[in-house]
Amino acid sequence: MEFLVTIESTPSVFADRHIGARRQADIDTMLKAVGYDSVDSLVDTAVPASIRQSSPLQLQAALGEVEVLDALRVLSKKNIPAVQLIGQGYYSAVTPAVIRRNVLEAPAWYTAYTPYQPEISQGRLEALLNFQTMVSDLTALPIANASLLDEATAVAEAVLLMRRANKSKTAVNAKTVLDSDLLPQTIAVVMGRAEALGFEVEIADLSLGLPEGDINGIVLQQPGVSGRVFNHAQVIAAAKEKGALVTVAADLLALTLITPPGEQGADIAVGSAQRFGVPLFFGGPHAAYMAVRPGLERSLPGRIVGVSVDNTGLPAYRLALQTREQHIRREKATSNICTAQALLAIVASMYAVFHGPAGLKAIAETVHHHARTLAGALAASGVEVLHASFFDTVTVRVPGRAKALIGVAESRGINLRVIDADHVGISLDETTTADIVARVADVFGAAPAGDGDDHAGASFALATDTVRTSDFLTHPVFNSHRSETQILRYIRKLSDRDLALDRTMIPLGSCTMKLNATAEMEAISWPEFASIHPFAPDSQTEGWRLLIADLEADLCEITGYDQVSTQPNAGSQGELAGLLAIRGYHLSRGDAQRTVCLIPGSAHGTNAASAVLAGMKVVVVGTAADGSIDRADLDAKIETHKSQLSAIMITYPSTHGVFDADVTEVCDAVHAAGGQVYVDGANLNALVGLAQPGKFGGDVSHLNLHKTFCIPHGGGGPGVGPVAAKSHLAPFMPGDANATVGNGAGEPAASTGVPISGSRFGSAGVLPISWAYVKLMGGKGLTEATKSALLAANYIASRLNDYFPVLYTGAGDLVAHECILDLRELTSRTGVSAEDVAKRLIDYGFHAPTLSFPVVGTLMVEPTESEDLGEIDRFITAMISIRHEIDQIAAGEFTLADSPLHNAPHTAAAVINSAWDRGYTREQAAFPLDALRQDKYFPPVGRIDGATGDRNLVCSCPPLEAFEDPTESFEN
Amino acid sequence: MEFLVTIESTPSVFADRHIGARRQADIDTMLKAVGYDSVDSLVDTAVPASIRQSSPLQLQAALGEVEVLDALRVLSKKNIPAVQLIGQGYYSAVTPAVIRRNVLEAPAWYTAYTPYQPEISQGRLEALLNFQTMVSDLTALPIANASLLDEATAVAEAVLLMRRANKSKTAVNAKTVLDSDLLPQTIAVVMGRAEALGFEVEIADLSLGLPEGDINGIVLQQPGVSGRVFNHAQVIAAAKEKGALVTVAADLLALTLITPPGEQGADIAVGSAQRFGVPLFFGGPHAAYMAVRPGLERSLPGRIVGVSVDNTGLPAYRLALQTREQHIRREKATSNICTAQALLAIVASMYAVFHGPAGLKAIAETVHHHARTLAGALAASGVEVLHASFFDTVTVRVPGRAKALIGVAESRGINLRVIDADHVGISLDETTTADIVARVADVFGAAPAGDGDDHAGASFALATDTVRTSDFLTHPVFNSHRSETQILRYIRKLSDRDLALDRTMIPLGSCTMKLNATAEMEAISWPEFASIHPFAPDSQTEGWRLLIADLEADLCEITGYDQVSTQPNAGSQGELAGLLAIRGYHLSRGDAQRTVCLIPGSAHGTNAASAVLAGMKVVVVGTAADGSIDRADLDAKIETHKSQLSAIMITYPSTHGVFDADVTEVCDAVHAAGGQVYVDGANLNALVGLAQPGKFGGDVSHLNLHKTFCIPHGGGGPGVGPVAAKSHLAPFMPGDANATVGNGAGEPAASTGVPISGSRFGSAGVLPISWAYVKLMGGKGLTEATKSALLAANYIASRLNDYFPVLYTGAGDLVAHECILDLRELTSRTGVSAEDVAKRLIDYGFHAPTLSFPVVGTLMVEPTESEDLGEIDRFITAMISIRHEIDQIAAGEFTLADSPLHNAPHTAAAVINSAWDRGYTREQAAFPLDALRQDKYFPPVGRIDGATGDRNLVCSCPPLEAFEDPTESFEN
Repeated sequence: MEFLVTIESTPSVFADRHIGARRQADIDTMLKAVGYDSVDSLVDTAVPASIRQSSPLQLQAALGEVEVLDALRVLSKKNIPAVQLIGQGYYSAVTPAVIRRNVLEAPAWYTAYTPYQPEISQGRLEALLNFQTMVSDLTALPIANASLLDEATAVAEAVLLMRRANKSKTAVNAKTVLDSDLLPQTIAVVMGRAEALGFEVEIADLSLGLPEGDINGIVLQQPGVSGRVFNHAQVIAAAKEKGALVTVAADLLALTLITPPGEQGADIAVGSAQRFGVPLFFGGPHAAYMAVRPGLERSLPGRIVGVSVDNTGLPAYRLALQTREQHIRREKATSNICTAQALLAIVASMYAVFHGPAGLKAIAETVHHHARTLAGALAASGVEVLHASFFDTVTVRVPGRAKALIGVAESRGINLRVIDADHVGISLDETTTADIVARVADVFGAAPAGDGDDHAGASFALATDTVRTSDFLTHPVFNSHRSETQILRYIRKLSDRDLALDRTMIPLGSCTMKLNATAEMEAISWPEFASIHPFAPDSQTEGWRLLIADLEADLCEITGYDQVSTQPNAGSQGELAGLLAIRGYHLSRGDAQRTVCLIPGSAHGTNAASAVLAGMKVVVVGTAADGSIDRADLDAKIETHKSQLSAIMITYPSTHGVFDADVTEVCDAVHAAGGQVYVDGANLNALVGLAQPGKFGGDVSHLNLHKTFCIPHGGGGPGVGPVAAKSHLAPFMPGDANATVGNGAGEPAASTGVPISGSRFGSAGVLPISWAYVKLMGGKGLTEATKSALLAANYIASRLNDYFPVLYTGAGDLVAHECILDLRELTSRTGVSAEDVAKRLIDYGFHAPTLSFPVVGTLMVEPTESEDLGEIDRFITAMISIRHEIDQIAAGEFTLADSPLHNAPHTAAAVINSAWDRGYTREQAAFPLDALRQDKYFPPVGRIDGATGDRNLVCSCPPLEAFEDPTESFEN
Repeated sequence: MEFLVTIESTPSVFADRHIGARRQADIDTMLKAVGYDSVDSLVDTAVPASIRQSSPLQLQAALGEVEVLDALRVLSKKNIPAVQLIGQGYYSAVTPAVIRRNVLEAPAWYTAYTPYQPEISQGRLEALLNFQTMVSDLTALPIANASLLDEATAVAEAVLLMRRANKSKTAVNAKTVLDSDLLPQTIAVVMGRAEALGFEVEIADLSLGLPEGDINGIVLQQPGVSGRVFNHAQVIAAAKEKGALVTVAADLLALTLITPPGEQGADIAVGSAQRFGVPLFFGGPHAAYMAVRPGLERSLPGRIVGVSVDNTGLPAYRLALQTREQHIRREKATSNICTAQALLAIVASMYAVFHGPAGLKAIAETVHHHARTLAGALAASGVEVLHASFFDTVTVRVPGRAKALIGVAESRGINLRVIDADHVGISLDETTTADIVARVADVFGAAPAGDGDDHAGASFALATDTVRTSDFLTHPVFNSHRSETQILRYIRKLSDRDLALDRTMIPLGSCTMKLNATAEMEAISWPEFASIHPFAPDSQTEGWRLLIADLEADLCEITGYDQVSTQPNAGSQGELAGLLAIRGYHLSRGDAQRTVCLIPGSAHGTNAASAVLAGMKVVVVGTAADGSIDRADLDAKIETHKSQLSAIMITYPSTHGVFDADVTEVCDAVHAAGGQVYVDGANLNALVGLAQPGKFGGDVSHLNLHKTFCIPHGGGGPGVGPVAAKSHLAPFMPGDANATVGNGAGEPAASTGVPISGSRFGSAGVLPISWAYVKLMGGKGLTEATKSALLAANYIASRLNDYFPVLYTGAGDLVAHECILDLRELTSRTGVSAEDVAKRLIDYGFHAPTLSFPVVGTLMVEPTESEDLGEIDRFITAMISIRHEIDQIAAGEFTLADSPLHNAPHTAAAVINSAWDRGYTREQAAFPLDALRQDKYFPPVGRIDGATGDRNLVCSCPPLEAFEDPTESFEN
């Protein structure tokens, strides 16, 4: 019979869509360049036999895109959306459709990388600057960062910031005091961090005044979790009197009506921007924020977008004060934050841009109006309303009846907050209608009065001394995009300024910028996934829990570990979770003295920072000449710290892009000394299907779902960093911050470990992406992807080695999934720096590779499996052409200062300039390859002067006049 | 009480998002320029009191975006998706997610206009050229157009083409023969057209040979609606022998396996590209196609993309042979086609680009395999399978049991085709799985055998003489985008070449390029709307029918008519439907002699073409000096043709952009003579809420939902052109092509009128857009939009009149919603043409206004209500700057030939050129305003030489070498 094909063998099989080089001719071309006759022989040489897994991955066979979307639809229908009035830090919000479609669902935004290359990131930098300006205006504190991971971790960061910054003799080592009206999950997360770091935390009702004793800092919340709006001025003044610093966790929407923290004397404001248009997402990802008073900016964790100038003096945005972050001083680190929630911060900023100050205030007034109407109705019918002054949350005392009332509400499709047997919380939001107010009142046997002068809620007016009187969001950007056409064009304009994966490969070593397939992305904005509250009853969240459990099981199989927790919402948080698990393990065995963490010198800075935050002492292990761990130094340090040895953190393959052959021996040596092995999963894309960290020596790892498992980088977040561990560490995996404090909303968490983020499943909202990826690929597809990534990296290394020597290789002179191109000799000979090459690549239409990490003066290139041979060759051609330009400098054809490299990148305005007097032509500047002529990307600004921006820190929107060209003359 | 706001008064009310100029300060600025102190006083002056409606629109109060999306979700749930195996021209298909998100749901694609300005349309022109190449390759006929409206109307066009093109003495007026195995709706539509035009059509089983007598042309279908695959070679040869032309309606997917029409001698191939990734959409919009042999290209209806060159010799795409179309010679017109289904054709072309020839063939083989498996199973269990050779459709004979079996299938979620009491049709498709095959077989008490040599379907192999042996889709574009990353970047690259509403206003007079809001767009791709078959049982389509009935009711209220039919899937089809209703009315009264249609000289060419197709005789009425209808000429012509007078077609406000004061008198005069009044609804955006054509004199109108009611232009379709009529014309509204032929699938149609398109509700799939728009705006919002559109047009007219005189104005020197800028004096003085200005606007980042319509040498500008004052001022500034450039030519500062106007638009390559020797600077070329420096749009090609392309017609993808720059030198 001639039936040739089945659906499974058609080109529509997803692995063939995900992997770029699938044509045998392309594969053969690449193999030939590397000198192998089959992919398997290359892989067998590159990957040490000692770590290879013995059997293929045992995963469900690959599904097609239609089947996966159908399966997701079935799962989604097992979630039951309700009217979500639980509050507690999470509120239903309306994502304006134009923002959902054109930001959250737009590849130009979600496939972008973190804006480390500012010239090709001006769009998202502007959007993030808008976010900072919005936070700064609303909190009345002048310096805001570009988002943090979630509110609970943001408060933890604020507490640590206060501890770093407070140099007062009496306060420096004193306790931290948390107001009892903070979100319970915030308290749980802060307590967990404090326990590891060994400082005292006291919980007190600060409305009654400060507790006795010296205080390092206090944390207040406005409005409190109970809904109460309280004038903090007095307690803040008292705290300052005592030398304490003050953090206020505040609701941004409430701040449109309520006196902002900065005006009450707070040093730090912190909170979540979720309700500015970001879906509930079953707990995340959401953008948290932090803003500080002047003087604290250099201690501020997270990224800060600043305003600087480019090489023509034009204002240009960039990440400011990066020394605080990218180049964390390993063992002296104080924060391990490196990811932000860029995509969600951008959504929130666009929400503010779209609504403007009047719109936001109108939304807040409507919410407040409804809350007062409800309170009035309840009070009128005899229900005790706890607070006379609130914004959106009404807490009622219903002795003994809380559970029953909540059950009634639930049966009517309304979720309320269980506080205890006697108290119920009701938090209203942007989506609340008069009908909902009436339905809620009815649960309590009450009915709202009509609006009018005798409105029953009149007595619940905000106290005059808590009413905001100052303006906010006065910058034109928040007052110029009121129509949908305007915001659509603004969104498009900004995204056009940037380069993302939808236009070019992003060959960033260690970042794994692979395809984020549409079929993976689609489900995240379906209401049945997006509109679920993290503390909704389990009966409404079965779909979510099934999906997450299934993903965790798949990740266990892939990594060889026994248990996975998706709670950590960034790689750094996964590291911390893993190290805290190790800490818990040692403590449980009475080994409190095991606090030394060995970290190779080549490790990512975050490793050391996480270890410090886990209460460990970092000891750096040297690097051998070939880039591997210096075994002699390792042995010596194990010996020295034998009884204190807690763990080693290794990255595999190493950050040098090489499969070190002796990894199992390293693991054995550490284990023999009683230590645990932490395998950083950043480079897991080189291992999936070939080797399992949990089988070749690791006790615990974190994974980066935003690398290996296709969650898009979102322009700098969301990241997701699940922690995976062997069974002996399982009891110490992240606990549930909400269950820990026993608010009764869910069942007790399975783990007794330290909670890492505010919601049980962290950034649950984006987990369908990774789930879909695994289902679409199946074990075979995943393994093929890994092999293809290895082939692509080795092809680039082979092709470019003659032009830019590859610094490190392993067995068979092969690299793993990335390669380091060493420019140092060229730099010393010609002055052309790795940065020059990175910037010049922009003129060729490329995002730069990773610059000067892990080795200064190098570029690290990772093509991933998703790039096809055509795109890889386009990159190689550009690099060879750049090498030719370097040679021209060496040959004296032009000077470095007057070279296309030094002046890169070139804007359209730079090359379309009658006064051109460069030593090279305009064409050479803009079209070094003819293929660039028709679809040329011009960066909106030239090379940016970072130092100027750091000297004069501006991190909110500059006035429009700053952008005016003084030479403008319309009549010309 | 201080409760200030309710949700309805917040800025999130949709009308404030839809209308650009909503700030009072902006409105005041605009009013001041026009010289009025209120919008109402302006409107009261501009719109004749005699036509003003007496009471506000009686529509449901405006809903918010959330409420509308909720309401749409409720409606969607009243549709019941099923396994759709009805076939009959409509098949389930998989829209690859990357194409759905990045084409169908991407503003850059869907908000684009028809590519009449080729320099800013190269992206969609390339995509449409891919479509043509795909059609041409698959049909083996060399010249394809860029899509037609639907398969049934495409066959009708083919029949008319044969009648135009066949000059043989015996054939020229002979009958047309349709094979009885054509789609029933195709037969119904062709019969309707033939009846109006008065030519004979015979239906015959052509597998038995040709009928007696002379034949103008025959139409075959491959595969037939019964599924039969038949070798047409013999009957085609016989037809040619007789001097007849031959059309074959063919299924594109089948043509990957079956001998194509061109290889069997057909002159014309026609059909639908729906199953290439376009959803069922309850019947449309889908892209139909037509391809012809050499010699027929100049008779081919619809748009054709051709390859020409730009002013630097670079290959460039443009619409070829436009003389056939845009400038239809009114009364001599032979086709009224002007809209295509560009967006859907692009989706289909991307589907082919993504799958490539091997992928398409694999899909077809899988479908065929399943069909044979099913047939084998049925035959083995004793069910009579009608044909031995088929592609995807199995017709079975089940005497007396058809209805019962279909009921069983339906109860199991499967829709089959009701043919008659004894026959059932089963059409499989891309989404069919082995499981579905088994479920269908089970309905008939059969079970499929396993695959293998003894496969039960083996006997149903295609006959050798019908198997395709030729290659197709060999061009690189169909063989280079196999990974999702590749297709994503290709889609982005093409869309970046174009200007659409997401980047700039498109001030096209008569085209009403207003906001296509995301909330309006979202529902169309929900599966509950998109996956419904047009012939699904009513029990599964309640949501659709409720929505359509509600929209029709709202459109009745808005227009003042009594009945609306959404069936016409383009404005031209609405015109035809309206005129056929008039024809039917006269015939019903015994007035068969009433065939004269009066049409003013300023009318759109389509008016006359539609009248001809409705069997009418066009008499042109002159235009007075002020642009209005020449009353004396009108009266004279009414008198002359009194007894033959059928209708007058007027556009209101007129195509001159003016409210003629005497429209009611014109209507009265025609009515007095026994004629009917057709009011072309193209300019309804100037009337909604202010005046109702059905009340001020119209008997029938068509509306353009893609203008006034926010269906996006999609780069040249879909359009939707409902016909609206007074009750006396209601019996003659479009009938149901499917019900007419009595296939039993639905209830009888309410109307006995002529069917206008193949499915009952035409392009139903996009009707949720207009429905949502009306609900979001409410009567008040719609009326405010109209007023705002009038204000904006008058503001532009006032501001630009000193630079470019406004040609026509009405009362108070006001225009309606658009204005004609007269360049003729400037042209005669300086040589600068309206086209030069249009092209120069591209350098300023704008899409051109309407060029030389309705008056040669002018530009017609329509801002719509959606543009804000900032954007309008940006346009005015550009126009004033251009006027300054014209003055520089007049002053001799540079010559016309060496001016930025004549050389516009300027590509990046043109200005980044060391050899620049123009009389103006590069900066003046590229950055005539400084605001352009940072976010500059460069067209991918320079001004295109249309004549060259028409002389050397190339309308499929050129070889890649054509794009190579012979001067390329990589080593430079």
